[in-house]
Amino acid sequence: MKSLKDYVVTIPDFPEPGIKFRDITGIVSSGEGFKLCIDMLLERLAGVEFDAIVALESRGFIFGAPIAAALGKAFIPVRKKGKLPRATIERSYSLEYGQATIEIHRDAIKPGERVIVVDDLIATGGTAKAACELVESLGGNVVELLFVMELPDLKGREALKGYKVESLISFEGE
Amino acid sequence: MKSLKDYVVTIPDFPEPGIKFRDITGIVSSGEGFKLCIDMLLERLAGVEFDAIVALESRGFIFGAPIAAALGKAFIPVRKKGKLPRATIERSYSLEYGQATIEIHRDAIKPGERVIVVDDLIATGGTAKAACELVESLGGNVVELLFVMELPDLKGREALKGYKVESLISFEGE
Repeated sequence: MKSLKDYVVTIPDFPEPGIKFRDITGIVSSGEGFKLCIDMLLERLAGVEFDAIVALESRGFIFGAPIAAALGKAFIPVRKKGKLPRATIERSYSLEYGQATIEIHRDAIKPGERVIVVDDLIATGGTAKAACELVESLGGNVVELLFVMELPDLKGREALKGYKVESLISFEGE
Repeated sequence: MKSLKDYVVTIPDFPEPGIKFRDITGIVSSGEGFKLCIDMLLERLAGVEFDAIVALESRGFIFGAPIAAALGKAFIPVRKKGKLPRATIERSYSLEYGQATIEIHRDAIKPGERVIVVDDLIATGGTAKAACELVESLGGNVVELLFVMELPDLKGREALKGYKVESLISFEGE
């Protein structure tokens, strides 16, 4: 039986020279691979009490939405600036390659709500950190950050010190 | 009990003056609303034989991914140009507001595979039509197009003549 890692395709020099891109479409474009991945994510959340999945545009949507739907939880999108139609708060941050601003709807989270932040990949942790700050600005509590893949060489866990970070598969020194 | 339509928030003049934006975050940011929506989508697909969900970036991911995961089907993302890491084919089309180019991985669909195209909204049908053409360029068959919301005034069904089109809720003359 294939392990989850077997489904990941590595693409050199995408989107920029020197970046090894870990492509999750190999996971999701297989019915078995996608189901395995979602089942593994759900297993990590077994027994965790929370109110909402906060997922990061747009690959985070692919993993966050099935979890929220399966567990009957709210799905809160964090999107690039200018995409959300109602009143938002925003946060800018540095990426592995470049700079970006993300937003969340101002009414997306109520004070005290417990949130799981979901994305496909943790690299430097910059996007995830900005998402946590958005959640906390609204009074929410980040219970856990949950990723499909982790690139430990980029030290995302250091950027997210103080948070519980989980990932399904890791590419260390690869 | 709230109907699915009760969860949709209408925002005037977004993203441009004169556009009434039907905001699906009202559906998905409610655990009940999101579950209701996904259950209704799954009900529409009961008994339909297919191999893959083709979902359109990025709101289509929010609805397409839970369906694919629940049914153990492949999830194929159609993305804006430049986002997919491997070899792609592309198609340009006109939007309700503006112009865009979308892509699909060249190896995403095998000849003869049966595909459901999923997005949050059918307006003019331009994006969905382009997605169908991408699927067919790869030899796939579009069994059905499935949308959460429909704006019949924009005549998307005419643009998609010859295809089976389904939507959960419709805003006619509103």
